[in-house]
Amino acid sequence: MMDYVEERFKKYQEQNQNRGRLLINCPDAPGIVAAASRFLYDQGANIIESSQYSTNPQGGTFFIRIVFECPDLKQKSSNMESQFEEIAQTFSMEWSFTYAYEIKKTAIFVSKELHCLRELLWEWQGGDLLTDVALIISNHEDARVEAERLEIPFYYIPANKDNRKEAEDKHKQLLEEYNIDLIVLARYMQILTPNFVKKYPNQIINIHHSFLPAFVGAKPYERAYHRGVKLIGATSHYVTNDLDEGPIIEQDIHRVDHRDNVEELKKIGRTVERSVLGRAVKWHLEDRIIVHGNKTIVF
Amino acid sequence: MMDYVEERFKKYQEQNQNRGRLLINCPDAPGIVAAASRFLYDQGANIIESSQYSTNPQGGTFFIRIVFECPDLKQKSSNMESQFEEIAQTFSMEWSFTYAYEIKKTAIFVSKELHCLRELLWEWQGGDLLTDVALIISNHEDARVEAERLEIPFYYIPANKDNRKEAEDKHKQLLEEYNIDLIVLARYMQILTPNFVKKYPNQIINIHHSFLPAFVGAKPYERAYHRGVKLIGATSHYVTNDLDEGPIIEQDIHRVDHRDNVEELKKIGRTVERSVLGRAVKWHLEDRIIVHGNKTIVF
Amino acid sequence: MMDYVEERFKKYQEQNQNRGRLLINCPDAPGIVAAASRFLYDQGANIIESSQYSTNPQGGTFFIRIVFECPDLKQKSSNMESQFEEIAQTFSMEWSFTYAYEIKKTAIFVSKELHCLRELLWEWQGGDLLTDVALIISNHEDARVEAERLEIPFYYIPANKDNRKEAEDKHKQLLEEYNIDLIVLARYMQILTPNFVKKYPNQIINIHHSFLPAFVGAKPYERAYHRGVKLIGATSHYVTNDLDEGPIIEQDIHRVDHRDNVEELKKIGRTVERSVLGRAVKWHLEDRIIVHGNKTIVF
Amino acid sequence: MMDYVEERFKKYQEQNQNRGRLLINCPDAPGIVAAASRFLYDQGANIIESSQYSTNPQGGTFFIRIVFECPDLKQKSSNMESQFEEIAQTFSMEWSFTYAYEIKKTAIFVSKELHCLRELLWEWQGGDLLTDVALIISNHEDARVEAERLEIPFYYIPANKDNRKEAEDKHKQLLEEYNIDLIVLARYMQILTPNFVKKYPNQIINIHHSFLPAFVGAKPYERAYHRGVKLIGATSHYVTNDLDEGPIIEQDIHRVDHRDNVEELKKIGRTVERSVLGRAVKWHLEDRIIVHGNKTIVF
Repeated sequence: MMDYVEERFKKYQEQNQNRGRLLINCPDAPGIVAAASRFLYDQGANIIESSQYSTNPQGGTFFIRIVFECPDLKQKSSNMESQFEEIAQTFSMEWSFTYAYEIKKTAIFVSKELHCLRELLWEWQGGDLLTDVALIISNHEDARVEAERLEIPFYYIPANKDNRKEAEDKHKQLLEEYNIDLIVLARYMQILTPNFVKKYPNQIINIHHSFLPAFVGAKPYERAYHRGVKLIGATSHYVTNDLDEGPIIEQDIHRVDHRDNVEELKKIGRTVERSVLGRAVKWHLEDRIIVHGNKTIVF
Repeated sequence: MMDYVEERFKKYQEQNQNRGRLLINCPDAPGIVAAASRFLYDQGANIIESSQYSTNPQGGTFFIRIVFECPDLKQKSSNMESQFEEIAQTFSMEWSFTYAYEIKKTAIFVSKELHCLRELLWEWQGGDLLTDVALIISNHEDARVEAERLEIPFYYIPANKDNRKEAEDKHKQLLEEYNIDLIVLARYMQILTPNFVKKYPNQIINIHHSFLPAFVGAKPYERAYHRGVKLIGATSHYVTNDLDEGPIIEQDIHRVDHRDNVEELKKIGRTVERSVLGRAVKWHLEDRIIVHGNKTIVF
Repeated sequence: MMDYVEERFKKYQEQNQNRGRLLINCPDAPGIVAAASRFLYDQGANIIESSQYSTNPQGGTFFIRIVFECPDLKQKSSNMESQFEEIAQTFSMEWSFTYAYEIKKTAIFVSKELHCLRELLWEWQGGDLLTDVALIISNHEDARVEAERLEIPFYYIPANKDNRKEAEDKHKQLLEEYNIDLIVLARYMQILTPNFVKKYPNQIINIHHSFLPAFVGAKPYERAYHRGVKLIGATSHYVTNDLDEGPIIEQDIHRVDHRDNVEELKKIGRTVERSVLGRAVKWHLEDRIIVHGNKTIVF
Repeated sequence: MMDYVEERFKKYQEQNQNRGRLLINCPDAPGIVAAASRFLYDQGANIIESSQYSTNPQGGTFFIRIVFECPDLKQKSSNMESQFEEIAQTFSMEWSFTYAYEIKKTAIFVSKELHCLRELLWEWQGGDLLTDVALIISNHEDARVEAERLEIPFYYIPANKDNRKEAEDKHKQLLEEYNIDLIVLARYMQILTPNFVKKYPNQIINIHHSFLPAFVGAKPYERAYHRGVKLIGATSHYVTNDLDEGPIIEQDIHRVDHRDNVEELKKIGRTVERSVLGRAVKWHLEDRIIVHGNKTIVF
């Protein structure tokens, strides 16, 4: 890691050493907020931010994300988590505590189109994307220069229809070695096997270059051009084993008109793709996303 | 027609008595602009506005829309048109002159949802939609009050799967009787027969309540909700005999999030639908749209 | 009031008879959320929605808006409020409970431009604006037809620089008589006196036809045209005694270009104005806005 | 210049060796389009694109931008220009031919904030900004690494209130030495002297970090925060000697809310600034902008 990034991480960790997040997901019932906020109060924590949502107050699912400051959080955390177990059981919660001082490790996969990778690295350099970009993996050599310039390990792993298993074995080995928390497919133009996808549930974020569910699959800009649409879009979603069908995190569009040929659509689209992917990754890193069925709650 | 509308029309016609539009569509070749602009100059016309587009300067199709002012246009127009024939043949043009003093006659079809109808009537009342709204046709009685309040003839013609031919016979008779130039389907929830559609090529504008080609067909908001999209849209297009596949005129979207249930999506969508339809109708009335294959050029 | 509106209100009140909202504003401190949510839980209430914000967790101001469902709310409410007093004192809260069954009464002031009035009435007719539009006051007769058609009392009160006091005396009398909760200036082109404004703190919403703080004061579209801006906007704000300086509730913009003359800017602007005002009024009616100094928190 | 950029330029120049642009600005009169298009036709040119605008067909100013393809343009150009003189005099035109094979030379000025510089360099690397970035000038050393990595000459010229003349003398010398056509102030935080500005009329593009005319001058984000605006913006304009008052080229905004502190506003603003500046520079390089008084026509 580059020195100034390491320094920035240290500073961030110091400033946020007492900041934690609690994510909960459970059947809706009276008293959940009261119980959780009381618990945090008893721990000495101050609630900084809190967002909640219920699919239906009568018999639906309840979701909450709480950000809190708690003195001596690092020392208290494991105790706190085991004490929370009791409340969690009462309300049948799925829950997790995360800590701002634990910086997530990210692997970026890319092919030949580098604009999404560049946006991520740029936001990361500027300090707006708080993650350790631990490695970049590609089936092409194009991104090597960018990676090496920023002292990020770069792995060229040829991948195509025929060597998919072999390539993924190498991927998995690297992801394990680097303790990766999040995989970002920044225009990685290879399909992942069900086996691989299954191993990283809600941990693989993809950018698809259309406004899903329009233009699922290959060559969306070409198809948008032929349909004569007046807006083109991009969609960031978690990868599941249904192609382009995973939970949508973020979408955006840009206006086009009859003068824009396929090349122009791609150019305009690149701007949309990179901002959509950038936001999705940022929200994931800040633990803002809860996956519920095939949809996302983004707090 | 209401008095103040009639008065406004008269005033508009006087102010624009010398304003014409020339639309051309032909194989691209050098000299088209020179020939057309020379022709207008020789007629004593001043070019006010001009927009052009070529699918490909080498062997493509060329489109141009010219707005001009010409003294004594009314007297000159038929002569002008016949003289233009020569240039038109030289370049194998499809062409048309239209005149601002000829106000188009519009029929609006509507069912039970009135927001699109209301937007059109509102824009029309405010003078922003320059057309004679000659009649409103509906398969329900809901719009009668709105129509009668504005002294627009209202025809209740029950329509459903079983009486389609019979209903359309009545429609055709009315459209003929009122000399209709444009049919607007302002959330008219009945499918038109191929026979009917064929009779009005590029003269029927529909609003579909999704961002096409996503969610073609019925219940788009319900399906958008279940897919968990982060943007919902609306599309205005000319009606062809392929359901929701006609040339797109205009599209727009609005941001939504996980809190928005189907009812909310519909509510937000109504705002998008009405503005998208309003723009499409306005552009059609101003002769800004040229249909080319299954796409539109909007000047 | 028209029958179908009255019916809709009744239905709404029945469906929401147990729905309440709690708004709090106090110095930030640990335990506020825990105390408030515990209190509601003890009352038998289920929290449906909750949003909070703190200007600064260390020594700042804390804001929260909680929506809850509580069986037999009507019977419990006064008791609940007096019991809450204790918590309120502990944390030095400013607070209020509001109840969905208490429909707010609104007075709309308008001059000659009717687009904002129409948008409000339309949203209100469609059921999207939940308020009793108790009366319309104007210094012109233009809006009378709209008002009477919808059976809303209309008062023509001439107002100008010279009779300001006299006119406002009539206004106040009417506002009192009708028990008005909210005053909406829907393009009412008269300045209100400090005396009048003081009487209705954070209860008067205005729409200004520019993107404030650009083009404060008169003729913003003319000035926008001369400055050559590429976007025009509108701003909805609470009225204070500093012209166009009150707390901003909502703003939006629309793209324009060199071809748009002042008339076009006004036309485009009308669409922005009406949607911005519509949202601001809706948020106020739903008790989503807390004024803090000269800014708003919109939950 | 880096090899691959040079190669790209060569390829572009070959592909566009016959492409020219004609910009005209004159009193409106009948026959201008006819004369100009006839002239081009006689030269053997095919009109590819044409946009026009008139402030007022009766006695206003007329603007047109024509893009054309003409065989052997390089050989013909000087002859063509001298022949055009006759038409130009007839209509009292200000006019210019530009040629796609003449790539403009750009100097970028920057201080410590690098996001705008990075956007420009990125678009330039990706081939979307067709210019020769001839040098980067800064009053700080921060941008040196970026510049040197891309083999762009970097000049550190300390500049402040006290040495303004001395610094600008160095600037002028460099701009002359490198034959600069366009100066981009990519968040260059120094005021230029009237003397300097006068030397480069409509050749200096600045990015101001507010939605002008709101928040002219220093610290716009801080002031936007204190005013409680709901949208923040950025404005790109030509530099004149009235601070932040030059002709506006492009503006855009982004939605913010009460939770966004000054730091957040700056972060969000950076995204807006870079895209607004990117578009303005691109349009200038494509000769799309005509300055008229204190406004721009952007074709």
